[in-house]
Amino acid sequence: MRKKVTIVGAGNVGATAAHWLAAKELADVVLLDVAEGIPQGKALDLLQAMPIEKRDVSIVGTNDYADTAGSDIVVITAGIPRKPGMSRDDLLNTNSKIMSDVVSKVVEGSPNSILIIVSNPLDAMAQAAFKKSGFPRERVIGMAGVLDSARFRTFIAEELQVSVENVTAFVLGGHGDTMVPLSRYSTMAGIPITELIEPAKLKELETRTANGGAEIVKHLKTGSAYYAPSAAAVEMVEAILKDKKKILPCAAYLTGEYGINGLYVGVPCKLGAKGIEKIIEIKLTADEQAALQKSADAVKELCTVIGVA
Amino acid sequence: MRKKVTIVGAGNVGATAAHWLAAKELADVVLLDVAEGIPQGKALDLLQAMPIEKRDVSIVGTNDYADTAGSDIVVITAGIPRKPGMSRDDLLNTNSKIMSDVVSKVVEGSPNSILIIVSNPLDAMAQAAFKKSGFPRERVIGMAGVLDSARFRTFIAEELQVSVENVTAFVLGGHGDTMVPLSRYSTMAGIPITELIEPAKLKELETRTANGGAEIVKHLKTGSAYYAPSAAAVEMVEAILKDKKKILPCAAYLTGEYGINGLYVGVPCKLGAKGIEKIIEIKLTADEQAALQKSADAVKELCTVIGVA
Amino acid sequence: MRKKVTIVGAGNVGATAAHWLAAKELADVVLLDVAEGIPQGKALDLLQAMPIEKRDVSIVGTNDYADTAGSDIVVITAGIPRKPGMSRDDLLNTNSKIMSDVVSKVVEGSPNSILIIVSNPLDAMAQAAFKKSGFPRERVIGMAGVLDSARFRTFIAEELQVSVENVTAFVLGGHGDTMVPLSRYSTMAGIPITELIEPAKLKELETRTANGGAEIVKHLKTGSAYYAPSAAAVEMVEAILKDKKKILPCAAYLTGEYGINGLYVGVPCKLGAKGIEKIIEIKLTADEQAALQKSADAVKELCTVIGVA
Amino acid sequence: MRKKVTIVGAGNVGATAAHWLAAKELADVVLLDVAEGIPQGKALDLLQAMPIEKRDVSIVGTNDYADTAGSDIVVITAGIPRKPGMSRDDLLNTNSKIMSDVVSKVVEGSPNSILIIVSNPLDAMAQAAFKKSGFPRERVIGMAGVLDSARFRTFIAEELQVSVENVTAFVLGGHGDTMVPLSRYSTMAGIPITELIEPAKLKELETRTANGGAEIVKHLKTGSAYYAPSAAAVEMVEAILKDKKKILPCAAYLTGEYGINGLYVGVPCKLGAKGIEKIIEIKLTADEQAALQKSADAVKELCTVIGVA
Repeated sequence: MRKKVTIVGAGNVGATAAHWLAAKELADVVLLDVAEGIPQGKALDLLQAMPIEKRDVSIVGTNDYADTAGSDIVVITAGIPRKPGMSRDDLLNTNSKIMSDVVSKVVEGSPNSILIIVSNPLDAMAQAAFKKSGFPRERVIGMAGVLDSARFRTFIAEELQVSVENVTAFVLGGHGDTMVPLSRYSTMAGIPITELIEPAKLKELETRTANGGAEIVKHLKTGSAYYAPSAAAVEMVEAILKDKKKILPCAAYLTGEYGINGLYVGVPCKLGAKGIEKIIEIKLTADEQAALQKSADAVKELCTVIGVA
Repeated sequence: MRKKVTIVGAGNVGATAAHWLAAKELADVVLLDVAEGIPQGKALDLLQAMPIEKRDVSIVGTNDYADTAGSDIVVITAGIPRKPGMSRDDLLNTNSKIMSDVVSKVVEGSPNSILIIVSNPLDAMAQAAFKKSGFPRERVIGMAGVLDSARFRTFIAEELQVSVENVTAFVLGGHGDTMVPLSRYSTMAGIPITELIEPAKLKELETRTANGGAEIVKHLKTGSAYYAPSAAAVEMVEAILKDKKKILPCAAYLTGEYGINGLYVGVPCKLGAKGIEKIIEIKLTADEQAALQKSADAVKELCTVIGVA
Repeated sequence: MRKKVTIVGAGNVGATAAHWLAAKELADVVLLDVAEGIPQGKALDLLQAMPIEKRDVSIVGTNDYADTAGSDIVVITAGIPRKPGMSRDDLLNTNSKIMSDVVSKVVEGSPNSILIIVSNPLDAMAQAAFKKSGFPRERVIGMAGVLDSARFRTFIAEELQVSVENVTAFVLGGHGDTMVPLSRYSTMAGIPITELIEPAKLKELETRTANGGAEIVKHLKTGSAYYAPSAAAVEMVEAILKDKKKILPCAAYLTGEYGINGLYVGVPCKLGAKGIEKIIEIKLTADEQAALQKSADAVKELCTVIGVA
Repeated sequence: MRKKVTIVGAGNVGATAAHWLAAKELADVVLLDVAEGIPQGKALDLLQAMPIEKRDVSIVGTNDYADTAGSDIVVITAGIPRKPGMSRDDLLNTNSKIMSDVVSKVVEGSPNSILIIVSNPLDAMAQAAFKKSGFPRERVIGMAGVLDSARFRTFIAEELQVSVENVTAFVLGGHGDTMVPLSRYSTMAGIPITELIEPAKLKELETRTANGGAEIVKHLKTGSAYYAPSAAAVEMVEAILKDKKKILPCAAYLTGEYGINGLYVGVPCKLGAKGIEKIIEIKLTADEQAALQKSADAVKELCTVIGVA
């Protein structure tokens, strides 16, 4: 039997995740959205590309959770963007309610699935999904670090004029501006980039990474990034479906690791068939530990607002 | 040196073509649009997916034709959709002016490029591009048949419950509702589908194919198809860049083939490094010939409106 | 859990099948042979290519059937080539005993597996495996037609100077010189090749195809073909593992189809998760039916020799 | 135009390199050998796998250097293995003569090609090819480090039970037992493996890597490794053809880098369209520098024997 992956949210991130997934022939795809017609239209259009790409997958667009039953993995991208005049807490509460609603419906038909959370604010939404689902932490994973490190890798590869395949980047902590880049564990052909890039330049690349999402928004004006975010989510899906035992930076529910307890924070995780099969702990410097704690505090604050701290 | 492909128009079709192209590491990509920020934002976002996908390509978003210089292939998706209250001829004239403007600018910097036209109404826009460019017909090719046949193949594979890889579909004529499907040359594992599918059902699939674009619009309401159209254009790009000598149904400028002269009409073409390297002629029945002529007449009518007949 | 594919026989065909499989990251691979060291050495060598190819699969070389337990698919390539002075029947009896031994051991640890038989003489060996295994016919499939049609497609594409992707070829009957090519169902871009290639030339290509294996042996002198045979077997494996519902010409145990009963003969089969999910029957001309019957008779004769008719 | 890659030597390494190349549809392939029939048979067999793989490449087997003219890259795998009773110097002189003969013939028809040397003893053969060719050092590159590091990565990934994609390995110096592994620059998800693997275990993995070729020979008895060596060569070919600017450990002619002058030694190189576009220098510890010098001395000794020091 083919694997089944549901994507909740048929906006740009969700639909492009379906694109990456189908193009790799990784699984049958169900694209679900509350908007009528959108998931159906995008799914049908994508399906019609499959003969060209020689991929045999089912791609179904739907508004009905019944179609998601029996999913192996559910990628949740649902949520609204901040609207003018909306307070941060209003946004949080709205998206938290959406997440809660989605998770309860998804879990019913797919009680053994693995949830990959992509909605923002990422870490708080992952925490909300975890609490609502009742799943073990192995099966509720937040996507943030893969995206942040992909951006960092892009900038490093460009700076050093080398293949993106040569560059690894290590990031910890929350998504976006509370991200903690660990440049000493970020490498070019195995060489720490701290030996290859001047500190000032490196700082510049780190800052650009932390503001990576905003840079795209500034260009697009009325939209936000979707290619790299969806590719990042699909890398996680692939690692799980293929049981690759791949270490990727993910938001995971910590229970003491890195001195943090009861919170979703970005850390290196081993992804395999069971979801998060291991959390990789490394020794941090005092500065790094402080930055990570600060990042965790920011997550906690958001979680408190929505009552999932 | 890597190959260079420019895509004009950073809407959904253009940007998704960039996605397919980059995901295959086929060429460096320049994404151009008149809208400021859109091509830059989408290109940067897509570029940031490349470390995840392990692809080394340059992806540049721009508003400046200077960046397109030296392109091997230029895919033109520019044009506006029909707006309420707009007459068909107004739309035609507007898009024809856009095409004329794009082609003159593209040709200046990339005089040896091959143009792949995706803008609608496809056949007329291809004719406009051909006339404006001054290129030999080998190097101005319209994308329509690959999309139409991909849709037909999707429906056939679904009906027969077989792999999309097993299904070929042969279409002639204009894009959309003047399309001439040749079911006797459409096959499942080499067997003509006319031997496998009842005539009434087959007619239904043909009609659904001819209305394939409208079906997607009906779902999306405010948008139109982009996944399959962009995949279709990229299959043509790949056939050319890899010199595959691949027979694909394309809109080509006929000079007597199929009894048609001086018009862009969909016919099977051999695509290789030089563009259209051969037009495949088959013997048509009287009915098929009449349908093709009708399709050609419709193209001619549009070409007359915009003065390129 | 990753899928598991065992390949019995670590000669060129078996090891190259492992190569194709691993390169596609389709499944964990067990390569088994009676020769000590050979499967271990080839498996380790191939495994060491995986970091370069970025594929996470286990590749184990072994002499012990215990390692094959729980396989989803078992590809059997075991058997000896004809030695000087050996009669056809001696060869048949020797390979039949090898097949019987392999199947009994494989079936013990992998009672739900699907067997793909590659050993020669193909149809008789498939019949021997089927009888020995006690499996339903869905799960014992012979590889011959994919190889024969790949050779035919190669020659057709070369003759017409088109992409191999454009060419389909339809073959029925036994492997090799009793093969029944159906050129009227063999196509280039959907067009029957009978409309494109002169009869004399076509006959020449058919004959070359039927002697395809011998042509390679003539070149290699002390060896026989392995690239295309192993690729053919892996296409069947992929169709099954991905549940592609792909129509491929396979040797299947007929129970009345095409007027043949109780024999393995090459026919178009739909391959999916359950193995052979359907046998495609087409109407044959009297000549074709006669050729197919002759092919079946030849298989029956061999089966009689080894007591599996 | 498609790229053209010639492979000299149609043994297991050469033919399997053709396999990897064709499977990736990277270039047209010419497989040349002095043995009559072998390259023709293997090339034809491999070509017949292409319809199955949907790859359009020309694959030509030949004994005639005229067919190699105009190659973009030439991979040289020619040479004999050591026979019983043969002294090291006899072997060296024999292979040196073969290399000299091959290079002079290859260079005549492909004066602008890039040579990738795979024949053993690797570093000396690369030096011989360089001297004979008269090419700049950018265009004569030895394959060794990619293979050695692939083996090291395999062992590290197995030890840490992680994806091979997570592991990088840095090796310097000669191929095989004079290899200088730099574990501090070898990483798992960016983390130096020296922080993850105990020194004794790490030493064991390093030693196993240095003896990686011998381990395979011990298994195979009458043969040596070819899957990983050919994959390594093809990774270099791909980096060049796609102008990836990829840092890979290669044998390069040093002119002062790492304190070594006028010798081929394994160092990290940036491979792009021009061949070696840059040599990456890192600061070595005294021990590492001594090991590298020892490795260079061993190469020099061999080069002296064959008169290319």
